[in-house]
Amino acid sequence: MHAITISEPGGPEALVWDEVSDPVPGEGEVLVDVVASAVNRADILQRQGFYNPPPGASPYPGLECSGRISAVGPGVTGWAVGDEVCALLSGGGYAEKVAVPAGQLLPLPAGTDLRHAAALPEVTCTVWSNVFMISHLAPGETLLVHGGSSGIGTMAIQLAKAVGARVAVTAGSKEKLERCAELGADILVNYREQDFVEEVKNATGGVGADVILDNMGAKYLDRNVRTLAVNGRLAIIGLQGGGKGELNIGALLGKRGVVSATSLRARPLGEKAAIVAAVRERVWPLIEAGQVRAVVDRELPMREAAGAHRVVEESGHVGKVLLTT
Amino acid sequence: MHAITISEPGGPEALVWDEVSDPVPGEGEVLVDVVASAVNRADILQRQGFYNPPPGASPYPGLECSGRISAVGPGVTGWAVGDEVCALLSGGGYAEKVAVPAGQLLPLPAGTDLRHAAALPEVTCTVWSNVFMISHLAPGETLLVHGGSSGIGTMAIQLAKAVGARVAVTAGSKEKLERCAELGADILVNYREQDFVEEVKNATGGVGADVILDNMGAKYLDRNVRTLAVNGRLAIIGLQGGGKGELNIGALLGKRGVVSATSLRARPLGEKAAIVAAVRERVWPLIEAGQVRAVVDRELPMREAAGAHRVVEESGHVGKVLLTT
Repeated sequence: MHAITISEPGGPEALVWDEVSDPVPGEGEVLVDVVASAVNRADILQRQGFYNPPPGASPYPGLECSGRISAVGPGVTGWAVGDEVCALLSGGGYAEKVAVPAGQLLPLPAGTDLRHAAALPEVTCTVWSNVFMISHLAPGETLLVHGGSSGIGTMAIQLAKAVGARVAVTAGSKEKLERCAELGADILVNYREQDFVEEVKNATGGVGADVILDNMGAKYLDRNVRTLAVNGRLAIIGLQGGGKGELNIGALLGKRGVVSATSLRARPLGEKAAIVAAVRERVWPLIEAGQVRAVVDRELPMREAAGAHRVVEESGHVGKVLLTT
Repeated sequence: MHAITISEPGGPEALVWDEVSDPVPGEGEVLVDVVASAVNRADILQRQGFYNPPPGASPYPGLECSGRISAVGPGVTGWAVGDEVCALLSGGGYAEKVAVPAGQLLPLPAGTDLRHAAALPEVTCTVWSNVFMISHLAPGETLLVHGGSSGIGTMAIQLAKAVGARVAVTAGSKEKLERCAELGADILVNYREQDFVEEVKNATGGVGADVILDNMGAKYLDRNVRTLAVNGRLAIIGLQGGGKGELNIGALLGKRGVVSATSLRARPLGEKAAIVAAVRERVWPLIEAGQVRAVVDRELPMREAAGAHRVVEESGHVGKVLLTT
C-alpha cells in the first residue's frame, strides 16, 4: 500500500507518499481501507519530530480516518468486512490501509458522507471527553472555547449549544468569529484586539466561564484562571503557548477551581474505547438529528499532505482539512 | 454570652474571652449551646487578619463545634431542643452559643463523646469532599497526605484505609510518622530528611500517587505533579507554602492529571449541606463501627484559646486541639 512517511523530521516537505508494507490486523483489530483521513495539530508536531507515536502505534501520521473494513482480526465481534466506519487512531491514518482496535471504530452516523466522517473521531472524542466527561459542562453554564474556528472549536461550539450551554469563543479574525457565530457561539472575542478575560466577564455579568477548553497552555494559564467562574473547570488539551506557566493557586482556591490536562492519543485502549462508546451514545444521535455536523474546510488528495499541513500551519482554515485516498 | 473576640489582628494574645451579645437563630437555623470547639489553621489566619469571615458569618473564630440545641429557628425540621449535635460552622465556634444553618448539623455518631465530637466536622467534611467527592479515591489506589499527623491528615489516613486504599504520608518527625503508622499509613516520609517524590515513587514501583491531599500550595506544586500517577488528582486545600507557583502543564498533560483547589468555608449553604449529608451517610457509619475516630491531641479551656493557638502554630500536636467551654 501507499502511506505518508516521514524519513527525516522537518517542514511539510518531509511528508512523502511512499510504498510501504500493508498493516496486518492483530487480535481485536480490523483492517480498514482508508477513504479519508484528516489533519490534526499533533500530526504537525509528529512531522517536526516533537511527538513520536506511542509504543505499538503505526509510524505514519494520522489520528483518524474513515473507510471500509477489509479484514477482521481474531476476537473481533460486531464488525464485518464491507462495513463503512470511521475510527480514532493512535497513528497511521495517512495511508491506504490501517489496522484499528475494534473499540476505536464508530459506525457512520446516518446521513453522513463517508469522506466527511473522517472529520469526526478526533474532534468528537476530544470535546466529549474533556468538556463533558471530565469537566461536566451543564445546561445553562458558559463554555469558553479558545480557537473557536478550529476543528475542535467548531465541534465544541455545536455540542455545547446542543446541551443548552452558552458559548464564548476566541479567534483571530472577524471572518472566523462570524463562522463561530453561525455555529451558535454567543460571545465572540477577537484575541488580536480584545482581552478575553474582560470580554467574558462582561458578557456573563461578572460570573465568568464555567468550563474553558484551552489549547494554549502556559500563555493563557493565568488569564484562564482569572476567567473561570466559581466552581469553574479549565481543560487544557494543547500547549501551543508553552508547557510551563505560573499558576495562581490562591485565585484557583478562591474559586474552588479545577485544572485538568489531557491528551487523547496517549490513553490506553480501554480508556479510548470508553470515550468512543460515550461518543457513539451521546454525540452520534445529535449528528443524525442534524443538530451537530463536522465542519470541513477543504479536501486534498492524501499524497498532497504537505499542502494540507501548510494550510493548517498558516491557520487559514475553519474546521477540518481532509486528506482523501 | 462569652466568646473569643479579635479586637486587633495579631499574635495569640489577640484572642480575648469577652462578653458579647447572644446570637439569634434565623430562618433555617438552630442555636447550639457550645460544649467544645476545635482549632483550625484558618482560625490562625483569621486571628492574624489574613482570612476575614465571609459575609453573614459570625465575627468570632471557630469553624466547628459540638453541643446541645437550645433553640430552633423558623423553618427547621428534624432537630429539637436538647439534641446533642456537632456542626460545621462558617465562624463563631469559639463561643458559648452559636447559630447554625440546619444543613450543617450532624448527630453524634453512636459511641462518641460529646466533647470529642467537636473534632469531627472540619476534618471529615474536608477529607470527604476533597479526597472522595472531588478526587474519587478508589480502593487499591494510593493516597499521599501531606501533614499526615495534622487533624486533617489523621482523618485522611483512616478514611483512605477504610475504603481499601494505600496511604503515604509526610510529616516532620519520627514520632509523628509513628502515630501515622498506628492509624494505618503504609508509606512514611520524613520531609526534613527525605524527598517525597522519590520515596513515593519507590514505594509504588514507579507508579506514584493516584490522589494527593496537599496543604502546602506553591512550595510543593512541582513536586506534587511529579509524584502524581497517570490519571492522578492533586487536591490543594491550603497555601502554607505560598499561593503562586510554576505549573508544569506538559508533565500534567503527560499524566492526564487534575489539579483542584478548594476551601470549605467559602462554599455556599447548599454545597456545605450536600457535603455534610454525604459525611453523615458515608463517614458516620465508619466511626460508629470503630474503624475511624477523631484523633484529639489535647483539650484546653476555651478562654485559653491563645495557648491552643500557640500549640498549633508550633506544630507540637498530633490530631486536633479542642477548646471546651
